[in-house]
Amino acid sequence: MNKSIFYHAGCPVCISAEQEIVNLIGANNVEVVHLGEKRQHIEAAETAGVKSVPALVTPTGNVLHINYGASMADVKG
Amino acid sequence: MNKSIFYHAGCPVCISAEQEIVNLIGANNVEVVHLGEKRQHIEAAETAGVKSVPALVTPTGNVLHINYGASMADVKG
Repeated sequence: MNKSIFYHAGCPVCISAEQEIVNLIGANNVEVVHLGEKRQHIEAAETAGVKSVPALVTPTGNVLHINYGASMADVKG
Repeated sequence: MNKSIFYHAGCPVCISAEQEIVNLIGANNVEVVHLGEKRQHIEAAETAGVKSVPALVTPTGNVLHINYGASMADVKG
Protein backbone atom coordinates (compact mmCIF):
# COMPACT_ATOMS: atom_id res chain seq x y z
CA MET A 1 0.00 0.00 0.00
CA ASN A 2 1.24 3.46 -0.83
CA LYS A 3 1.70 5.78 2.09
CA SER A 4 -0.80 8.38 3.15
CA ILE A 5 0.53 11.88 3.75
CA PHE A 6 -0.50 13.76 6.89
CA TYR A 7 -0.06 17.52 6.53
CA HIS A 8 -0.04 19.74 9.59
CA ALA A 9 1.36 23.02 10.77
CA GLY A 10 2.39 22.35 14.34
CA CYS A 11 -0.74 23.67 16.02
CA PRO A 12 -1.91 21.74 19.10
CA VAL A 13 -4.95 20.28 17.34
CA CYS A 14 -2.65 19.13 14.53
CA ILE A 15 -0.28 17.36 16.91
CA SER A 16 -3.14 15.65 18.68
CA ALA A 17 -4.65 14.50 15.40
CA GLU A 18 -1.24 13.38 14.17
CA GLN A 19 -0.72 11.09 17.14
CA GLU A 20 -4.16 9.56 16.67
CA ILE A 21 -3.70 9.04 12.95
CA VAL A 22 -0.25 7.52 13.34
CA ASN A 23 -1.55 5.17 16.02
CA LEU A 24 -4.56 4.13 13.95
CA ILE A 25 -2.94 3.76 10.54
CA GLY A 26 0.53 2.79 11.67
CA ALA A 27 3.67 4.90 11.53
CA ASN A 28 4.95 2.95 8.52
CA ASN A 29 1.87 3.82 6.48
CA VAL A 30 1.88 7.58 6.84
CA GLU A 31 4.35 10.31 5.99
CA VAL A 32 4.05 13.34 8.24
CA VAL A 33 4.79 16.75 6.71
CA HIS A 34 5.01 19.87 8.88
CA LEU A 35 4.11 22.65 6.47
CA GLY A 36 5.39 25.30 8.86
CA GLU A 37 8.87 23.79 8.71
CA LYS A 38 8.76 22.50 5.13
CA ARG A 39 7.15 25.37 3.30
CA GLN A 40 8.34 24.00 -0.03
CA HIS A 41 5.68 21.31 0.35
CA ILE A 42 2.80 23.81 0.50
CA GLU A 43 2.30 23.88 -3.26
CA ALA A 44 2.15 20.08 -3.49
CA ALA A 45 -0.34 20.01 -0.61
CA GLU A 46 -2.57 22.55 -2.31
CA THR A 47 -2.34 20.69 -5.61
CA ALA A 48 -3.44 17.53 -3.79
CA GLY A 49 -6.52 19.44 -2.64
CA VAL A 50 -5.57 20.33 0.93
CA LYS A 51 -7.75 23.26 2.04
CA SER A 52 -6.87 23.30 5.73
CA VAL A 53 -4.63 21.44 8.14
CA PRO A 54 -4.48 18.92 9.63
CA ALA A 55 -5.37 16.87 6.58
CA LEU A 56 -4.69 13.34 5.44
CA VAL A 57 -4.11 12.64 1.76
CA THR A 58 -4.87 8.96 1.24
CA PRO A 59 -3.11 6.60 -1.18
CA THR A 60 -6.15 6.89 -3.47
CA GLY A 61 -5.75 10.67 -3.60
CA ASN A 62 -8.71 11.61 -1.45
CA VAL A 63 -8.18 14.40 1.05
CA LEU A 64 -9.64 13.96 4.52
CA HIS A 65 -9.69 17.30 6.31
CA ILE A 66 -9.55 16.59 10.01
CA ASN A 67 -11.06 19.06 12.45
CA TYR A 68 -10.34 22.61 11.38
CA GLY A 69 -7.05 23.84 12.65
CA ALA A 70 -5.65 26.47 10.36
CA SER A 71 -6.48 27.52 6.84
CA MET A 72 -3.82 27.25 4.17
CA ALA A 73 -3.80 31.06 4.16
CA ASP A 74 -2.77 31.00 7.82
CA VAL A 75 0.00 28.51 7.10
CA LYS A 76 1.35 30.81 4.40
CA GLY A 77 1.25 33.71 6.88
CA MET B 1 -6.80 -2.33 20.66
CA ASN B 2 -10.33 -1.12 21.24
CA LYS B 3 -12.33 -0.25 18.18
CA SER B 4 -12.76 3.24 16.84
CA ILE B 5 -16.29 4.34 16.03
CA PHE B 6 -16.99 6.09 12.74
CA TYR B 7 -20.21 8.11 12.84
CA HIS B 8 -21.84 9.23 9.63
CA ALA B 9 -25.25 10.11 8.25
CA GLY B 10 -25.23 8.60 4.79
CA CYS B 11 -24.25 11.74 2.92
CA PRO B 12 -21.90 11.25 -0.05
CA VAL B 13 -18.92 12.83 1.72
CA CYS B 14 -19.56 10.51 4.66
CA ILE B 15 -19.59 7.39 2.50
CA SER B 16 -16.41 8.45 0.75
CA ALA B 17 -14.68 9.13 4.06
CA GLU B 18 -15.98 5.87 5.48
CA GLN B 19 -14.42 3.84 2.70
CA GLU B 20 -11.10 5.61 3.16
CA ILE B 21 -11.10 5.18 6.93
CA VAL B 22 -12.06 1.52 6.76
CA ASN B 23 -9.32 0.89 4.20
CA LEU B 24 -6.72 2.75 6.24
CA ILE B 25 -7.55 1.50 9.73
CA GLY B 26 -8.94 -1.89 8.78
CA ALA B 27 -12.55 -3.03 8.90
CA ASN B 28 -11.92 -5.03 12.08
CA ASN B 29 -10.74 -1.93 13.93
CA VAL B 30 -13.64 0.39 13.31
CA GLU B 31 -17.35 0.22 14.06
CA VAL B 32 -19.46 2.18 11.58
CA VAL B 33 -22.62 3.84 12.89
CA HIS B 34 -25.13 5.44 10.49
CA LEU B 35 -26.83 8.06 12.67
CA GLY B 36 -29.60 8.53 10.15
CA GLU B 37 -30.62 4.90 10.53
CA LYS B 38 -29.66 4.44 14.19
CA ARG B 39 -30.95 7.61 15.74
CA GLN B 40 -30.75 6.08 19.22
CA HIS B 41 -26.97 6.47 18.92
CA ILE B 42 -27.10 10.25 18.48
CA GLU B 43 -26.97 10.96 22.20
CA ALA B 44 -23.93 8.73 22.69
CA ALA B 45 -22.22 10.40 19.76
CA GLU B 46 -22.86 13.86 21.18
CA THR B 47 -21.67 12.75 24.61
CA ALA B 48 -18.45 11.51 22.99
CA GLY B 49 -17.97 15.00 21.58
CA VAL B 50 -19.14 14.56 18.01
CA LYS B 51 -20.02 17.99 16.62
CA SER B 52 -20.49 17.08 12.95
CA VAL B 53 -20.35 14.01 10.77
CA PRO B 54 -18.44 12.21 9.49
CA ALA B 55 -16.37 11.85 12.64
CA LEU B 56 -14.09 9.21 14.05
CA VAL B 57 -14.03 8.59 17.80
CA THR B 58 -10.71 6.93 18.55
CA PRO B 59 -10.07 4.26 21.19
CA THR B 60 -8.48 6.97 23.36
CA GLY B 61 -11.67 9.02 23.24
CA ASN B 62 -10.48 11.75 20.92
CA VAL B 63 -12.89 12.91 18.24
CA LEU B 64 -11.50 13.52 14.76
CA HIS B 65 -14.01 15.51 12.73
CA ILE B 66 -13.42 14.67 9.10
CA ASN B 67 -14.32 17.19 6.42
CA TYR B 68 -17.56 18.91 7.24
CA GLY B 69 -20.54 17.05 5.99
CA ALA B 70 -23.54 17.75 8.16
CA SER B 71 -23.96 19.31 11.56
CA MET B 72 -25.50 17.28 14.33
CA ALA B 73 -28.48 19.64 14.07
CA ASP B 74 -28.94 18.54 10.46
CA VAL B 75 -28.80 14.88 11.44
CA LYS B 76 -31.54 15.45 14.00
CA GLY B 77 -33.64 17.17 11.34
